[in-house]
Amino acid sequence: MTMKKVAIIGVGHTKFGRLQDKGLMDLLCEASLEAIGDANANEKDFDSVYVGVMSPEILNNISGVASALVDRISLIPAGADDIKNGPASGGSAIKVGFQAVASGMSDLVLVVGGEKMTHITTPGYVTSNVATLTHPEAERLHGVSLPSLAGLLTRAYLEKYNAKLDWISDIAIKNHKNGALNPNAHFQKTIDDFMKSAIQKGRGNWSNVYEFLKDDKTNPIIADPLRLFHICPISDGAAALVLCNAEKAKDFCDTPIMISGIGQATDTHILFEREDFTTLKALRLCSEQAYKMANKTSSNIDVAELHDAFEILEAVQSEDIGFFKKGEGAKAAHEGITQIGGKIPINPSGGLKARGHPLGATGIAQVVELIWQLRGQAGKRQVEGAETGISCNFGGFGNNIISILVERM
Amino acid sequence: MTMKKVAIIGVGHTKFGRLQDKGLMDLLCEASLEAIGDANANEKDFDSVYVGVMSPEILNNISGVASALVDRISLIPAGADDIKNGPASGGSAIKVGFQAVASGMSDLVLVVGGEKMTHITTPGYVTSNVATLTHPEAERLHGVSLPSLAGLLTRAYLEKYNAKLDWISDIAIKNHKNGALNPNAHFQKTIDDFMKSAIQKGRGNWSNVYEFLKDDKTNPIIADPLRLFHICPISDGAAALVLCNAEKAKDFCDTPIMISGIGQATDTHILFEREDFTTLKALRLCSEQAYKMANKTSSNIDVAELHDAFEILEAVQSEDIGFFKKGEGAKAAHEGITQIGGKIPINPSGGLKARGHPLGATGIAQVVELIWQLRGQAGKRQVEGAETGISCNFGGFGNNIISILVERM
Repeated sequence: MTMKKVAIIGVGHTKFGRLQDKGLMDLLCEASLEAIGDANANEKDFDSVYVGVMSPEILNNISGVASALVDRISLIPAGADDIKNGPASGGSAIKVGFQAVASGMSDLVLVVGGEKMTHITTPGYVTSNVATLTHPEAERLHGVSLPSLAGLLTRAYLEKYNAKLDWISDIAIKNHKNGALNPNAHFQKTIDDFMKSAIQKGRGNWSNVYEFLKDDKTNPIIADPLRLFHICPISDGAAALVLCNAEKAKDFCDTPIMISGIGQATDTHILFEREDFTTLKALRLCSEQAYKMANKTSSNIDVAELHDAFEILEAVQSEDIGFFKKGEGAKAAHEGITQIGGKIPINPSGGLKARGHPLGATGIAQVVELIWQLRGQAGKRQVEGAETGISCNFGGFGNNIISILVERM
Repeated sequence: MTMKKVAIIGVGHTKFGRLQDKGLMDLLCEASLEAIGDANANEKDFDSVYVGVMSPEILNNISGVASALVDRISLIPAGADDIKNGPASGGSAIKVGFQAVASGMSDLVLVVGGEKMTHITTPGYVTSNVATLTHPEAERLHGVSLPSLAGLLTRAYLEKYNAKLDWISDIAIKNHKNGALNPNAHFQKTIDDFMKSAIQKGRGNWSNVYEFLKDDKTNPIIADPLRLFHICPISDGAAALVLCNAEKAKDFCDTPIMISGIGQATDTHILFEREDFTTLKALRLCSEQAYKMANKTSSNIDVAELHDAFEILEAVQSEDIGFFKKGEGAKAAHEGITQIGGKIPINPSGGLKARGHPLGATGIAQVVELIWQLRGQAGKRQVEGAETGISCNFGGFGNNIISILVERM
């Protein structure tokens, strides 16, 4: 391999949540400047910028986001492009930035992703927009949305593997518990906190969170059997990385982290056409690419950030990325194996469920979390001794998935 | 340089124009399959796909275009992303694809761009959408659109360099003359043809095209002093390239063409802040990058495809890409230097003016034309003996420009 090695030397991450005083450009600037500062880099050193965004044209009435960004943060004349792959736009931006450095075309690249969504108040507008990822004739025309597909997937999974919906709830419970330890998370409350607050407000009286999570009033069904707490929120936020030619990384920082594996694969647009509805073939393929490139297997991974836009997805992804056999992912979550301190901690950040899901930011926020874990900077949610991490960023409804493997140099 | 060399081994190009029976996906598929066939490539050989599109979310109500495309044309599981840079989305997609091959991550990449626009009948809708590229507060809020900026630029240029509006018209006359020789062009009529047709229909009686072009009825002012015939149309269409690791290119085709130089640079978002309003600094920088990488100068170029969304732009670009001194581009067009058969033929395809401008397709269509010229396949518009060509793909209003230099192996 003559490919140049690529290191991550700086990270940035805004607070995720309902950020009413900030626009998309503000968020992208904030995350970018934090990453550039973290990298001890100079604006003039940057060759190119890749911005992962899904819907600035529709949600924010702007286009050419990357071109605007380089002006706002004084990176002119660096080349700048918007990279789009639905909710995996962040992961795709990292891949494109990786290739810029690996090719030798760039030595220092800013990759940033973000989305500003919570100002949209028209009911269904954001969900309809995200549904433009589904197949226009075979799916969308018939009213299919992403939550509805996740509901169907949950039913199929529970039936096929004799799993329990409570185990899917256990994933949400874990991710809220982790998010409560993450100052950047959209939600910093455990589900126990939410329940106690509801009890205090006189909304009901439950003896445990499983009861609370079955209450139609406090946790309504969104896409049967999935309820509100099984589904990620709509969030504002941005996250950024500085990628660097690894030979030059030590000039900037003492703890560069390597991107040692990266993979991307696609699957059929229409879910009906997949070989197996409960298997994410694209994830199997792209994680295999990442493992092979890094000369690692799933048993080498210390920590993972998976794409739990719907909690069922964390279960399925934890299987197809190689941690568990098919049908055992939800049970493993139930048994605590994926907790911080468990055998393979998943989503110590809180995941999409609790950290939040500003579409274009997510794939980058996942890698930022892995970097913090590998640097030992993850505070109360630190996975002890983490040296190798992997992410799964999920585009469309699993028809375009990116997996990124990072490790300490 | 350890960078892998990148060759173009296949090209595809739909008819451009008002294509009422085809949707965006149809056009992208058509151009892609033509390029794959031209490359003698097999679907299973492709590692990745990059799609240059500007506004599928707004104009066509779909997102994740690349993910949908790989399914439609059986390229699954190749990775696939949408690449956006306004009207330079095609050029950016080529650059991203170039880096995929140059890094060694991919050996065979499909790059395709397209736009479906003419079905939009709401007056001003497309122009407003394109205006989302301008600065939201400093420009758009005050009613600035891209045609208005081009009108201002034309006034400034004519005054500063003591040039004549007729010379700008000469660019349109040349490009329509070239387009009349291009079976894929949106318009296959010379301006003389348009005039004769108008005379036949009894709309007026003019003794030459310059008179015809000054008539308010047949050639109304759009953005003073620019009239209808100084401005490109809204078009439907798509164009595609197959990029290949140059070491393997001869396995596929006998006449691979090298991408020997590629550059991209940004400038201030707000035009008011530029050092000189009539100079495209981003083009100077990105073409310098391309020349340097290819070890060439502007004097080595045999043919060029420039981004004449407005005819003034061809004049300015022909200067900043190095063919003429500042202020001499329009005069050079007037003197015939940029005609086919002239010293440096510009836009033998007809350019955006006559070939048309389906936004995401344009940067790729420019390179397809250069490939045809370098292969000697350009038919009646062939530039004899062309061995080296360069393109300028213009994003925003010149704040993000890409230049691609191709040459025979």
